[in-house]
Amino acid sequence: MEKREQLYEGKAKKVYATDDPELVIVDYKDDATAGNGAKKGTIRGKGVVNNKVTNSLMKMLEENGVPTHFVEQLSDRETVVKKVSIVPLEVIVRNVAAGSFTARLGVAEGTRFASPTLEYSYKDDALGDPLINSYHAIALGAATREELDTINAYAFKVNEVLKAYLAKFNIDLIDFKLEFGRLPGGQIVLADEISPDTCRFWDASTGAHLDKDLFRRDLGGEEDAYREVLKRLLGE
Amino acid sequence: MEKREQLYEGKAKKVYATDDPELVIVDYKDDATAGNGAKKGTIRGKGVVNNKVTNSLMKMLEENGVPTHFVEQLSDRETVVKKVSIVPLEVIVRNVAAGSFTARLGVAEGTRFASPTLEYSYKDDALGDPLINSYHAIALGAATREELDTINAYAFKVNEVLKAYLAKFNIDLIDFKLEFGRLPGGQIVLADEISPDTCRFWDASTGAHLDKDLFRRDLGGEEDAYREVLKRLLGE
Ligand SMILES: Nc1ncnc2c1ncn2[C@@H]1O[C@H](COP(=O)(O)OP(=O)(O)O)[C@@H](O)[C@H]1O
Ligand SMILES: Nc1ncnc2c1ncn2[C@@H]1O[C@H](COP(=O)(O)OP(=O)(O)O)[C@@H](O)[C@H]1O
Ligand SMILES: [Mg+2]
Ligand SMILES: [Mg+2]
Repeated sequence: MEKREQLYEGKAKKVYATDDPELVIVDYKDDATAGNGAKKGTIRGKGVVNNKVTNSLMKMLEENGVPTHFVEQLSDRETVVKKVSIVPLEVIVRNVAAGSFTARLGVAEGTRFASPTLEYSYKDDALGDPLINSYHAIALGAATREELDTINAYAFKVNEVLKAYLAKFNIDLIDFKLEFGRLPGGQIVLADEISPDTCRFWDASTGAHLDKDLFRRDLGGEEDAYREVLKRLLGE
Repeated sequence: MEKREQLYEGKAKKVYATDDPELVIVDYKDDATAGNGAKKGTIRGKGVVNNKVTNSLMKMLEENGVPTHFVEQLSDRETVVKKVSIVPLEVIVRNVAAGSFTARLGVAEGTRFASPTLEYSYKDDALGDPLINSYHAIALGAATREELDTINAYAFKVNEVLKAYLAKFNIDLIDFKLEFGRLPGGQIVLADEISPDTCRFWDASTGAHLDKDLFRRDLGGEEDAYREVLKRLLGE
């Protein structure tokens, strides 16, 4: 596996080509952003935590029937994944109201829904990742109805499996964002990452934030919180 | 049929009780608002046009299998309708991109979608009628999944029937907003109004606006445009 040219540098990761056209290497950074890039900073050690946590959760999800892009961890920050064409949607599942959702819909943070909700943000930084629904996603050419049905089913499956898994580590899964991609044959797989950057994790006993909200809201303690998630999930 | 106390005064209509607890009278005003009440004005004769156009379209839709609240027109501005418990959703169907949709999603006004889109705004003036999806509607208690399925089916049916009907009068149906309500037995019916206030009508030959966008955008000619719609549809 040879690491070749950088294909893309995002806000949290770099993506590199390899000698295999169907594989890329993702390289996790410590850079942290919030508010669609309006706030910028660093969370020391974040890249290592997000790489290892993502890989551990993706492996667990694969074993539970959710296909993912994961192939092999190379180092503390680098992982080989199947190269996909990303579906330009952030797929957000919520068990409990938190964050932007609460002000927008007049629901108090911490309100648990009778059933989880699912929503799409259209991945377009210039438009500010606007909330859209399935009709819009199809009209915009982001995905087909069949792809959205597959994506929704996987997203709810991820929620059920992940919620139960995290409960064993005394973590309450509040909400999370997923990205999906298409393999060359068109199959939909879970891509990107599953980490304290992309999930809200609350300590199940104290309600303490174990995620990027500590950074977003200037609460402090984010380095410890990320390390705590790694320790609970991987014993490191 | 006795008209009793006023139950509600909205931005465009007043609603009165009657001696029958299952019926109310709606009284259409000439008051016009835009931008969730930010802009206020008057469109002379609007109430008469909206009353007659709504009733004519609701009758036509009933004949085509869409149940509505319509009972009987009483006068130029007054109509008896079945009293419903309004489902707090604005149900918007779009054939062509126009208005707020275009800036939000980066689509040029006038872009025709391959298939119509449907979306919900949560009817809550304090929140600014935010866009929501079906999961949010259920979580907020606005409607059940079964009600939403019925509402969506009716909304797309209204679109097909209305689009074809208006084409005969050289009117292109760009988009529209519907409200639905529950009868005492729980049945969903189309309620509120279908008028140049709640639809975008473009002249099919010239593309000229025949709707409230003339007022919203300070283009002028709104009184003539409303009268023109009445003339085309009812020959008056
Ligand atoms: N398997 C994959 N193949 C190709 N691209 C991927 C894959 N997984 C994730 N990506 C994309 O790589 C980028 C990851 O970098 P990130 O820093 O998270 O970007 P962003 O700033 O867009 O959030 C994202 O655009 C993501 O969609
Ligand atoms: N059949 C009905 N029964 C009860 N309420 C209705 C019915 N049809 C419409 N309404 C409600 O009556 C009000 C009509 O007034 P309007 O001026 O359009 O109000 P708004 O300012 O809320 O748009 C709306 O709240 C609408 O939901
Ligand atoms: Mg990202
Ligand atoms: Mg109204």
